[in-house]
Amino acid sequence: MNDKPPAKRIVDLRAGERLDDHVFRVAQKELRTATNGSLFIHAVLADSTGQLVARMWQASQEIYQSIPEGGLLHVRGRVDNYKGSRQIIIDGVRQVEPGTYNPADFLPSTKLDVEDLWEQVKELLRGIKHRDLLALVGKFVNDPIFVAGFKQAPAAVQMHHAYLGGLLEHTRNLLRLAEAVCPLYAQVSCDLMLAAIFLHDAGKVRELAYATNFEYTSEGQLVGHIVQGVLWIHDKCRELEHEAGRPFPHEVEMALKHLVLAHHGKYEFGSPRLPATAEAIMLHYLDNLDAKLAMVFEAIADDTDLTSEWTSYVRALESRIYKPNALGEPGGRSSR
Amino acid sequence: MNDKPPAKRIVDLRAGERLDDHVFRVAQKELRTATNGSLFIHAVLADSTGQLVARMWQASQEIYQSIPEGGLLHVRGRVDNYKGSRQIIIDGVRQVEPGTYNPADFLPSTKLDVEDLWEQVKELLRGIKHRDLLALVGKFVNDPIFVAGFKQAPAAVQMHHAYLGGLLEHTRNLLRLAEAVCPLYAQVSCDLMLAAIFLHDAGKVRELAYATNFEYTSEGQLVGHIVQGVLWIHDKCRELEHEAGRPFPHEVEMALKHLVLAHHGKYEFGSPRLPATAEAIMLHYLDNLDAKLAMVFEAIADDTDLTSEWTSYVRALESRIYKPNALGEPGGRSSR
Amino acid sequence: MNDKPPAKRIVDLRAGERLDDHVFRVAQKELRTATNGSLFIHAVLADSTGQLVARMWQASQEIYQSIPEGGLLHVRGRVDNYKGSRQIIIDGVRQVEPGTYNPADFLPSTKLDVEDLWEQVKELLRGIKHRDLLALVGKFVNDPIFVAGFKQAPAAVQMHHAYLGGLLEHTRNLLRLAEAVCPLYAQVSCDLMLAAIFLHDAGKVRELAYATNFEYTSEGQLVGHIVQGVLWIHDKCRELEHEAGRPFPHEVEMALKHLVLAHHGKYEFGSPRLPATAEAIMLHYLDNLDAKLAMVFEAIADDTDLTSEWTSYVRALESRIYKPNALGEPGGRSSR
Amino acid sequence: MNDKPPAKRIVDLRAGERLDDHVFRVAQKELRTATNGSLFIHAVLADSTGQLVARMWQASQEIYQSIPEGGLLHVRGRVDNYKGSRQIIIDGVRQVEPGTYNPADFLPSTKLDVEDLWEQVKELLRGIKHRDLLALVGKFVNDPIFVAGFKQAPAAVQMHHAYLGGLLEHTRNLLRLAEAVCPLYAQVSCDLMLAAIFLHDAGKVRELAYATNFEYTSEGQLVGHIVQGVLWIHDKCRELEHEAGRPFPHEVEMALKHLVLAHHGKYEFGSPRLPATAEAIMLHYLDNLDAKLAMVFEAIADDTDLTSEWTSYVRALESRIYKPNALGEPGGRSSR
Amino acid sequence: MNDKPPAKRIVDLRAGERLDDHVFRVAQKELRTATNGSLFIHAVLADSTGQLVARMWQASQEIYQSIPEGGLLHVRGRVDNYKGSRQIIIDGVRQVEPGTYNPADFLPSTKLDVEDLWEQVKELLRGIKHRDLLALVGKFVNDPIFVAGFKQAPAAVQMHHAYLGGLLEHTRNLLRLAEAVCPLYAQVSCDLMLAAIFLHDAGKVRELAYATNFEYTSEGQLVGHIVQGVLWIHDKCRELEHEAGRPFPHEVEMALKHLVLAHHGKYEFGSPRLPATAEAIMLHYLDNLDAKLAMVFEAIADDTDLTSEWTSYVRALESRIYKPNALGEPGGRSSR
Amino acid sequence: MNDKPPAKRIVDLRAGERLDDHVFRVAQKELRTATNGSLFIHAVLADSTGQLVARMWQASQEIYQSIPEGGLLHVRGRVDNYKGSRQIIIDGVRQVEPGTYNPADFLPSTKLDVEDLWEQVKELLRGIKHRDLLALVGKFVNDPIFVAGFKQAPAAVQMHHAYLGGLLEHTRNLLRLAEAVCPLYAQVSCDLMLAAIFLHDAGKVRELAYATNFEYTSEGQLVGHIVQGVLWIHDKCRELEHEAGRPFPHEVEMALKHLVLAHHGKYEFGSPRLPATAEAIMLHYLDNLDAKLAMVFEAIADDTDLTSEWTSYVRALESRIYKPNALGEPGGRSSR
Repeated sequence: MNDKPPAKRIVDLRAGERLDDHVFRVAQKELRTATNGSLFIHAVLADSTGQLVARMWQASQEIYQSIPEGGLLHVRGRVDNYKGSRQIIIDGVRQVEPGTYNPADFLPSTKLDVEDLWEQVKELLRGIKHRDLLALVGKFVNDPIFVAGFKQAPAAVQMHHAYLGGLLEHTRNLLRLAEAVCPLYAQVSCDLMLAAIFLHDAGKVRELAYATNFEYTSEGQLVGHIVQGVLWIHDKCRELEHEAGRPFPHEVEMALKHLVLAHHGKYEFGSPRLPATAEAIMLHYLDNLDAKLAMVFEAIADDTDLTSEWTSYVRALESRIYKPNALGEPGGRSSR
Repeated sequence: MNDKPPAKRIVDLRAGERLDDHVFRVAQKELRTATNGSLFIHAVLADSTGQLVARMWQASQEIYQSIPEGGLLHVRGRVDNYKGSRQIIIDGVRQVEPGTYNPADFLPSTKLDVEDLWEQVKELLRGIKHRDLLALVGKFVNDPIFVAGFKQAPAAVQMHHAYLGGLLEHTRNLLRLAEAVCPLYAQVSCDLMLAAIFLHDAGKVRELAYATNFEYTSEGQLVGHIVQGVLWIHDKCRELEHEAGRPFPHEVEMALKHLVLAHHGKYEFGSPRLPATAEAIMLHYLDNLDAKLAMVFEAIADDTDLTSEWTSYVRALESRIYKPNALGEPGGRSSR
Repeated sequence: MNDKPPAKRIVDLRAGERLDDHVFRVAQKELRTATNGSLFIHAVLADSTGQLVARMWQASQEIYQSIPEGGLLHVRGRVDNYKGSRQIIIDGVRQVEPGTYNPADFLPSTKLDVEDLWEQVKELLRGIKHRDLLALVGKFVNDPIFVAGFKQAPAAVQMHHAYLGGLLEHTRNLLRLAEAVCPLYAQVSCDLMLAAIFLHDAGKVRELAYATNFEYTSEGQLVGHIVQGVLWIHDKCRELEHEAGRPFPHEVEMALKHLVLAHHGKYEFGSPRLPATAEAIMLHYLDNLDAKLAMVFEAIADDTDLTSEWTSYVRALESRIYKPNALGEPGGRSSR
Repeated sequence: MNDKPPAKRIVDLRAGERLDDHVFRVAQKELRTATNGSLFIHAVLADSTGQLVARMWQASQEIYQSIPEGGLLHVRGRVDNYKGSRQIIIDGVRQVEPGTYNPADFLPSTKLDVEDLWEQVKELLRGIKHRDLLALVGKFVNDPIFVAGFKQAPAAVQMHHAYLGGLLEHTRNLLRLAEAVCPLYAQVSCDLMLAAIFLHDAGKVRELAYATNFEYTSEGQLVGHIVQGVLWIHDKCRELEHEAGRPFPHEVEMALKHLVLAHHGKYEFGSPRLPATAEAIMLHYLDNLDAKLAMVFEAIADDTDLTSEWTSYVRALESRIYKPNALGEPGGRSSR
Repeated sequence: MNDKPPAKRIVDLRAGERLDDHVFRVAQKELRTATNGSLFIHAVLADSTGQLVARMWQASQEIYQSIPEGGLLHVRGRVDNYKGSRQIIIDGVRQVEPGTYNPADFLPSTKLDVEDLWEQVKELLRGIKHRDLLALVGKFVNDPIFVAGFKQAPAAVQMHHAYLGGLLEHTRNLLRLAEAVCPLYAQVSCDLMLAAIFLHDAGKVRELAYATNFEYTSEGQLVGHIVQGVLWIHDKCRELEHEAGRPFPHEVEMALKHLVLAHHGKYEFGSPRLPATAEAIMLHYLDNLDAKLAMVFEAIADDTDLTSEWTSYVRALESRIYKPNALGEPGGRSSR
Repeated sequence: MNDKPPAKRIVDLRAGERLDDHVFRVAQKELRTATNGSLFIHAVLADSTGQLVARMWQASQEIYQSIPEGGLLHVRGRVDNYKGSRQIIIDGVRQVEPGTYNPADFLPSTKLDVEDLWEQVKELLRGIKHRDLLALVGKFVNDPIFVAGFKQAPAAVQMHHAYLGGLLEHTRNLLRLAEAVCPLYAQVSCDLMLAAIFLHDAGKVRELAYATNFEYTSEGQLVGHIVQGVLWIHDKCRELEHEAGRPFPHEVEMALKHLVLAHHGKYEFGSPRLPATAEAIMLHYLDNLDAKLAMVFEAIADDTDLTSEWTSYVRALESRIYKPNALGEPGGRSSR
């Protein structure tokens, strides 16, 4: 139904290039007065590959109001070099016909193929042998509303995997980790790990809004993805009971809810329960491992300063990151 | 169906008294070997008014095994004075016929009348004007299983109001506080406060076991009373929708769940959300006010050391408590 | 002695309006050089209802120096719209004749009637029955210097009730709370609560300067309002002893000092003592309740973003605030 | 007026020795029932050099009641070896004639000469050149009640210098440190340091009771030595003003109060203010230096385990202490 | 050279059994006086499978002194049931001829085969492709003193894997984890992970003493295993340089030292550096995963209370552990 | 070899002055576009006495690229007054001939004479009597590479003594403190204190880069100055052993390493060990005393706001600093 976004994406634009009716998402806009009294527009233009600051000199109130914040816009102008960064100088703008493009095509997005990731997830979940758990997982896998959201949601607003498909990518990573690690610990239930990983962040599908922007929904802020996930599991268990005409095993439901509730590992990170089973502890550490590694890789990928061996400070890691591959291995740090 | 517990309760026993077939709950028992090689039994005997250490010299393995831990027992013996405290010396024991007494009559229990408290709670809840909230509260008030547990449950295993009826007493106190305080803040919704207070600790009905002893249920430890309460509200909302054939208002449900989730006020106290509405903040502080005052009153009531103006250290208050009424007001500190 | 401030206040100014010799308080001023080399003045103009950024193009060093920072100024110009906010463009300025206006009329100020609040406070304090406490309270009520400061002081520099009369309003709120809550706890001394609430922040009268600006005095920073309040109570007790020729009851003085010292509730909030009496605990929670509710109401009142259901992040509450009244009650969140 | 305590002190008693009417302070007593039904007394006997556990077999209620807890007692019996520790077996006890001994002679006490320490303190204070500070210090030095308490008070109930004269010894140490260190920092006021050191813990004279035992007074717990010290300084300043007919310099009084209030260095250690002057910072670190070194020396002196190079865990230092002098210097760790 | 320890180990002893010249390690001994005045010995006897309390009535000073604390002893007596636990009643003791047994055979020990574990470790390390890293690892693998200690050392004094061979077992687990997990993250250097895992706790070989007991060496307490490990790596690099006549690559040495220094992940856990590379983060989480899972398994294995679904509180996990396998999988929780 | 920097330093420049070919270090540079489309350069120019913002209007890409960031530059222009601060308006720039000046002459630098400080340090170290410690210290004193760095290194990148020679000045201060304080505590080893002070921050010589700028080296960030210092001591001990043909005393080496490792005093400040000897505690507090006093003096020296008695907030002290000398002593706060 929608056109594809322009072939040339922000990541590829070079200083000096002309922009001829290029489509961007307007992430931000402001009308400013220059010191000589004239008005100019300061904006942030974005697509799925990044964002750039833009300026339009000699603007007017009318032009300003015609620009849809959070919406799409045709831009004519050029790419400039400003303090070593690229910047867009806008000469003119033009409305985008509604329905021409899908705004989601202009949000940051996983570099991987979403359908392929989803197939991997389903394949890994097929490893669950416990009948009731498998049925419960099936209720989610076969719920088209859940699946649509699950494929699209970012894993976070900004900490890690903060892009469309990020939740799916992070979940796939964890399932793969569990597949590799569970067999090493005979006392850990692989089935429970797989089901819990699949659902541990399911609440994010509802906690976050990601149709045109990444932000928390009101319900997300009032209730939180951890409890939202538990409520979702609760509802699916009730549905299963209704369909099957027999109770869903209570211990299994409790154990699974516990895994979701405890996966942040500490009260101060918003978990209302601390891990009290081997699976809860494993989920917590594998989740952290993948999330923190993603932060490292993203910090290195976002870093463009060739003069330093260190990225800038990454708050969630309480450290700057050392960029070189100490062993000089080829390809070490360069791609996500 | 059951006999009443003996007229003379632990609180009234005096050193020197004879015990002739007195009934107690056995809170603890241990078989110990004396240094001369003979066996003796060390036990803790309890009823609703308190507990005492007891010893039976010259015991045998058979006598020991005949004593039901957590159950009731006829005791013959005397009350002794040991290091300034009363202690029971057991001469003989006899089984209690099952069904003769209600074990709950031997658990610590509120000094107030439970039915009277429950009437007060219902009366205060009748003040709710919002139709849907009132209906939701009604689903709980008219659920006999909930009500039976709600009247019986302690408010905690040991922190404050840790006695049968404690949850009811604490809830009644909070409702009375809200009735007095809400009118002083026009922007706070009285209806939401009353409903939230009623349900904020409802999960404790399931988190705790209190039939013959006070302890956490497995579900209580895995899921926690905060989330258990939210799940219970969730189920009742779904029931109402099913009965009424129309959706329960989403904002009301979210706001109420938020109040329950946030009422501990801080992540480190197990709340997965921080208070984000005026009502959530008010609930948190009123809850703390009543709980902490109860700790003060209980610390003073439990303190029997007449030589000091201070109780022993109360861990949850990070302080010892000063017992005198500084103004010399009559009756100041003496009763609960 | 002073003229009234202009009828039209900042809260009422609209973009497009002309300002003809309007009087403002100059909260800030800076002389800046434009990129074309010319000078301009950037200032913040304020009155009791708010503040606005202002700019004067083509300024000179002389004009800049004629503007009194922290003082009053006649301004000629217009109100502009800049990035969605109002901004004043100054065409000319003129000195204000000293003594024409009261600078305090241009500081943020309680919306309530100060004299009425003060009468309420005195009326509530008349409820104290203990003779010595009443006499002590009377020493403050009848001290014109204390009363003048107490009516004027803000409750804080910026956290809550940070406006002239804020301390009085906060104290009135707490006294009303105590009047409602004390009767529910027979073991709490109402007299001690009323006296302690009246004096708990009395030190702020000296800790803060609020004649033309809100800031800490040097003594306020070196000694702090908690200890300043205790020293003030100490001095008044000595005065009373001197007048009465008999000692002020030691227990009462200690208990009152303890309440002031412990009312922040935790060492890390600057209390050198932790609450060790029922009254100290009640004071701490009521104080927090009123202060935190004020932060919620102020955050909502200050919020002008109609596109979000949430205020921006409120640091002292560690949360954004949810603005809607979930029950749809009329008037719910709209007024202070 | 009083007899001297017995020549042989606890520190010198050896297992196997007979005790013939030896005088001890009874630090604790308990009447216990042996498993064979007979009564025995368990007590802790103390003098200024230490304390020992004592037992009296075949005791009676009458003997037990004749023993004054916290008072003095003639003891007949022997010193035994019990699990590698000395223990007293009591054969008989006899009342001590009131007034025969000074109970304080049986409390732990500084090993140094109190009068000599006091002379050193006064000599060091004579170095103050600022007229008003010197006058203020003089008000304390010439207050016999203060001086009597100051010479006697321990510096703490148990952390460091917890013995009679401990406050004096600690204060002398700090004055000597200031005398050595101040000259190295030209911007630090020696006069202010000396006065502040002298008075920083003066409140302990009132915070603690130490006539027959070490414990907090009720005022000490309600108000605390930090604020008690400030109130004492406040009173002495007012006295000085009254005598001199002119105000005590406000800045000096504020600076001194600040030093006392801030000397614990952090809110969580009970200081209501954080150090905001060079002197406040120096006082905090010198105070810590002497206190923590005293803990190290006391931990080593109290340690009698020759088989380990480490003392047991010292909670306030969060560590065990390494006992050897690494350099093999003579006398290194052996004496206090 | 040494006899084998007795076939019947503590884990297999049953109440009622006779002990006829059974050999134990004496973990603790105390001489106590019974209330009837007679002496008895209280001891803790241990072997590699556990430990039991033992009592010898009617003991003498001579017998007591003949028992070697930390050494081995022949014991004659019986196993009793005391408060539901087994206890040894000693009738007689006899010296063990020096050299008859290896004391280490009586310390708690891994259930796995040490030589087999060591072969696995070496096999996994052969996967390292980087020449210098492989050479460095070889310096350790071929150092007989290191290898002897590495095979014997526990991983901790009491937290997890606190048994002989525990360090080896924990290291093998981590190497296996790395082998499974590294391939999932292309940007992580497998070689660096393998080398760092092998050496991350190498300092424990020197930090701990484990010949006859588990405790910290003085150097262990003064320097700590983290820095001891780094110093060891430092020395081996210097050796390699000396042998090879060329510098060890500086980046590799720094990266490896960083991994060891940062592997505790947080300053408060004793790491002087925070993880700043992907490998450092992975090492930290894998190390935690294996250590925390071991605590769970050990808590369940040590738990003998069949009446509760929960272990007692595990301090390092801040929780009790839920014992059942929720899915009812066979063998789930039962073996280590 | 190098010219001296210009006689007139930044600290002496006055608004209105002409700059005629003045030499500065370029601390920062940016090319900016003015709102009228023209380019201008924004730079920060510095010398050893301070730094100033500078602007060059009508700049070009060519001029911009000719300016060496971190290097030296001849500047022609004038000093302007901008918002009450001085600012440089650049008219023209000219390259500095390499080798003409020493870039270090343009970094902030101690006000004291470096050679004189070094002589003081050596003199104080001569007080060490222990032969091996003295030999070890000698290895550093006679290592020209160490000495060159030690004389030049700042004590920190920005906290305190953050200027060339700062490490030397801080070390001299600590040695002088130890010389004054050690004799007051007979149980503290003066020799160990002197050696440990000299070497406690030696690792900073390698942790920091300070040739043309102050920043962390990669090794500094990966390993940290604490462990770098310990490794340096380790190497020098090995050298000594090699030269002397006998082992360096193990206890002395451990004690010294412990002092370096523990001198930050707490895990959260990056010490992997907590102080466990009297010397370790003394080192920690003296180090803090000098560092924190330096922060106070530097905050006052940097403060130019004559209208306030308080400096702005000093983050590391968690407070603003009170500037007046309360006693009115001459010269009190004015010079470093």
